[in-house]
Amino acid sequence: MTTPTLDGETVEIYDTTLRDGAQQEGMNLTVADKMLIAPLLDELGVAVIEGGWPGAIPKDTEFFALAAKELDLRHAELAAFGSTRKAGARAHDDVQVRALLDSEASIVTLVAKSDIRHVERALRTDGEENLAMIADTVRYLTGEGRRVIVDAEHFFDGYRFDPDYALRAVEAAFTAGASDVVLCDTNGGMLPDWVHAVVAEVRTRTSGRLGIHAHNDTGCAVANSVAAVQAGARHVQGTVNGYGERTGNADLLAVVANLELKLGARCLVPGALTEVTRIAHSVSEVTNIPPFGRQPYIGASAFAHKAGLHASAIRVDPDLYQHIDPTLVGNDMRMLVSDMAGRASIELKGRELGIDLTGRPEVLTKVVDRVKNAEANGYTFDAADASFALLLQEELDGHRPAYFRVESWRASVLYSERIGGDGECEATVKLHAGGARVVQTGEGNGPVNALDHALREALLGTYPEIASFELVDFRVRLLDTSHGTDAVTRVLIQTSDGASVWSTVGVGPNILEAAYEALVDALVFGLVQAGVEPR
Amino acid sequence: MTTPTLDGETVEIYDTTLRDGAQQEGMNLTVADKMLIAPLLDELGVAVIEGGWPGAIPKDTEFFALAAKELDLRHAELAAFGSTRKAGARAHDDVQVRALLDSEASIVTLVAKSDIRHVERALRTDGEENLAMIADTVRYLTGEGRRVIVDAEHFFDGYRFDPDYALRAVEAAFTAGASDVVLCDTNGGMLPDWVHAVVAEVRTRTSGRLGIHAHNDTGCAVANSVAAVQAGARHVQGTVNGYGERTGNADLLAVVANLELKLGARCLVPGALTEVTRIAHSVSEVTNIPPFGRQPYIGASAFAHKAGLHASAIRVDPDLYQHIDPTLVGNDMRMLVSDMAGRASIELKGRELGIDLTGRPEVLTKVVDRVKNAEANGYTFDAADASFALLLQEELDGHRPAYFRVESWRASVLYSERIGGDGECEATVKLHAGGARVVQTGEGNGPVNALDHALREALLGTYPEIASFELVDFRVRLLDTSHGTDAVTRVLIQTSDGASVWSTVGVGPNILEAAYEALVDALVFGLVQAGVEPR
Repeated sequence: MTTPTLDGETVEIYDTTLRDGAQQEGMNLTVADKMLIAPLLDELGVAVIEGGWPGAIPKDTEFFALAAKELDLRHAELAAFGSTRKAGARAHDDVQVRALLDSEASIVTLVAKSDIRHVERALRTDGEENLAMIADTVRYLTGEGRRVIVDAEHFFDGYRFDPDYALRAVEAAFTAGASDVVLCDTNGGMLPDWVHAVVAEVRTRTSGRLGIHAHNDTGCAVANSVAAVQAGARHVQGTVNGYGERTGNADLLAVVANLELKLGARCLVPGALTEVTRIAHSVSEVTNIPPFGRQPYIGASAFAHKAGLHASAIRVDPDLYQHIDPTLVGNDMRMLVSDMAGRASIELKGRELGIDLTGRPEVLTKVVDRVKNAEANGYTFDAADASFALLLQEELDGHRPAYFRVESWRASVLYSERIGGDGECEATVKLHAGGARVVQTGEGNGPVNALDHALREALLGTYPEIASFELVDFRVRLLDTSHGTDAVTRVLIQTSDGASVWSTVGVGPNILEAAYEALVDALVFGLVQAGVEPR
Repeated sequence: MTTPTLDGETVEIYDTTLRDGAQQEGMNLTVADKMLIAPLLDELGVAVIEGGWPGAIPKDTEFFALAAKELDLRHAELAAFGSTRKAGARAHDDVQVRALLDSEASIVTLVAKSDIRHVERALRTDGEENLAMIADTVRYLTGEGRRVIVDAEHFFDGYRFDPDYALRAVEAAFTAGASDVVLCDTNGGMLPDWVHAVVAEVRTRTSGRLGIHAHNDTGCAVANSVAAVQAGARHVQGTVNGYGERTGNADLLAVVANLELKLGARCLVPGALTEVTRIAHSVSEVTNIPPFGRQPYIGASAFAHKAGLHASAIRVDPDLYQHIDPTLVGNDMRMLVSDMAGRASIELKGRELGIDLTGRPEVLTKVVDRVKNAEANGYTFDAADASFALLLQEELDGHRPAYFRVESWRASVLYSERIGGDGECEATVKLHAGGARVVQTGEGNGPVNALDHALREALLGTYPEIASFELVDFRVRLLDTSHGTDAVTRVLIQTSDGASVWSTVGVGPNILEAAYEALVDALVFGLVQAGVEPR
């Protein structure tokens, strides 16, 4: 039967998580969020990262300004998104078009109308002027040295209504110098055979490279993207985790996995496919939108087997029950994680942290049990190496290093209309260290901050090494939101001593207790790492 | 271009939510759950409801016994799932085959092997015996008056490896009297063009009715199901909400919507398509798995628009921006408010909330400014309708409803090793309501929970309506993680009064101040909505 049909063909991968993905309900990416996500996409080797719409959205203008100074991309180029010039004006007089140049992005992606009904009813101009708007704007921007991609909005609906006009819009873009025209299923209503037929027809009737931009309203965004490539498109737009307005954009990493693994195309930099699970989850951490367990290829459940019917056969012959080897996308077959692979990966992880577990099978068994139990209670060690290292060391030594003992702590917030402004936050810690009992109060702009200050100040006399520790990142996640404020809270923090950064985790019934646990782990790990003995 | 190609053709819809859907990670359906879900599926008019595997799973045996007595289905027939007889035995001696008859289900669905590698390596028998197992079991059960459907497991993998053997398995089933042979993409690794090609080939080489059973491992389960029908299959299996093992089964209602609305086929009873959103959400209530907002057709976000670019055009001409009229599947168009929103989307949103802003351009301008300013400071309104409605009403009236005035509040957590266990959380509120000053302390398992309790208890005397309010969801997000614990915190909460749910937002320098703001908005909105006047 069918074998790979795109063998060795290159497909350009264009990520629009930061622009179209950000249209998702409940997502509100800050400039800092975008600065965190862009390098993750770059690690995968996507060709283009669309950063936003400078000139239209102030936050996006700011992002491009910061990116030009501070973002050091190895593989990807940044694209600025914007629209063609206004009707009846000139491209170089258009403030929004100039803002695209000012963004300093080497690629400009212009959204253009190709459905005559949208031209007349939404843009309120005529077909000829719209074609002139496309041609002028593309010509002006290419003249300024930019690569210009044209997103032909509502293309499939437009083509099905009036193919000749839709094709004229594509030709106007190519003639003016666009590198690619991207056929957009903006409303997401297409099915794969329709997409295939339209792309194949457009390909025979135009000259330039075609792209595809699909939305998931029929549940077919991934299939529509693949169908377009099979019909000759060589540029694919989508978003990490399928983020986007309504039902979302095409899940870019699922499309890439299909193109590379099923059809033999080249999309990412070699070797990067094994990182997609990790990167997709890291992006979720930034967007703070919980990952969808059933997500193809990268979901936590994607290779999790439950069927008792298959269990013994899977053990013998996993290839019979998996469409691909999950390690190809950096995912795991979950059934085996509990025994064989679990032990192996923990041994590997220990080695990575400088803790040798070879020849200590009884420790390994205990650590596997503790990790499984802890993860069932909400802990995660993927993003908390330092907490994991302390757990491992504790199982090896039989105890934790006894730097200090906390007798009690209290943290509070007081808001009063008489004081005005923000509330007053303070924390008091009572602890034993260096043979003395210390009572210390700290203040902060939140109760966690106050608790962090109280803990450090209480310990500084005994452990002056702590002076160089700084809390550099702090994340909160509620793990089970079905019980309102009764949800379990997980806190992940990163601490730095100027030379290295370490991550710790805490889980508790509320943010303060979870944060306290992560803060204590951070201090203990920092002292261990600095070679400090308990005093 | 392409128009409906299945005009008036009937496609049999086979729901396997209760059997294959129940393999989903984290799902554990009780007999009572199944008794609640089956009538919901019947309301839609699916042709077959697969209830489980009697004889193999005790809970399923029990379900069929209870269903035979108490389940009164108007449209659907129940199917019992099971496997062909054991190798080397006789069908009527096989305990599990007899259990299928004992279930009293009028339809029996037999899973059968069609991939020679699975026959040899998992079943550990030979090709001829497997064919005899299929033929004997089908013949025995049809002889007992049952309609028999055969699920050809791993069919596509098997066909691509050894088409002749796979076809012999199909023919064995049809010759013995099976009404349908369902081609299963058990591992979920197929793409639509492969499915189309295989189904079309099998159709030319066999005589009976073919079905499709797809899994979503490539993100193409819906597209694969549609492709199979386009190639001639006339029976589709899937699950509500795409539940199922790994990445899930084909989302049955998305397949049905595509077949009916895009291709003109007949699947459900006439008129039932407008009920699919309600039914899918009701099934979520029973399974207790939160609905996925981006789910095609039925998700809460499926017809939610955020982009300011489009809002003004949507107002004029919604059909330009929706692939279907959402009421066709019982869903609604929603406008989301964000910093990308302009005047048009805010006017539309107001209308949706029952607040008319036509002829109030000065209010509109002020609201747009406040929204943009608030979102720049970390607020988000697309997930906080109630806070947005209060903002809008405040701009219209010039003030907020004065239900109460908070003089001060304090919340604290105390942890002490002498007490042990979790920390003690309490909050004290001092407020003025109903002409009196109230001082009230609340406890909780976290400081936010304690503050929530203190606020409600302080107000209950004056506003007993609050007794029915319940906090049902609580989300925290740190908005700028580059400053450690100095980050700004955003809290989104959902509150219910049993009849409706509303969402509010708060932003502050820490979780408590942010939560306080969202809690107050939630109480005020609930009182406004209940028509309560300030006392």
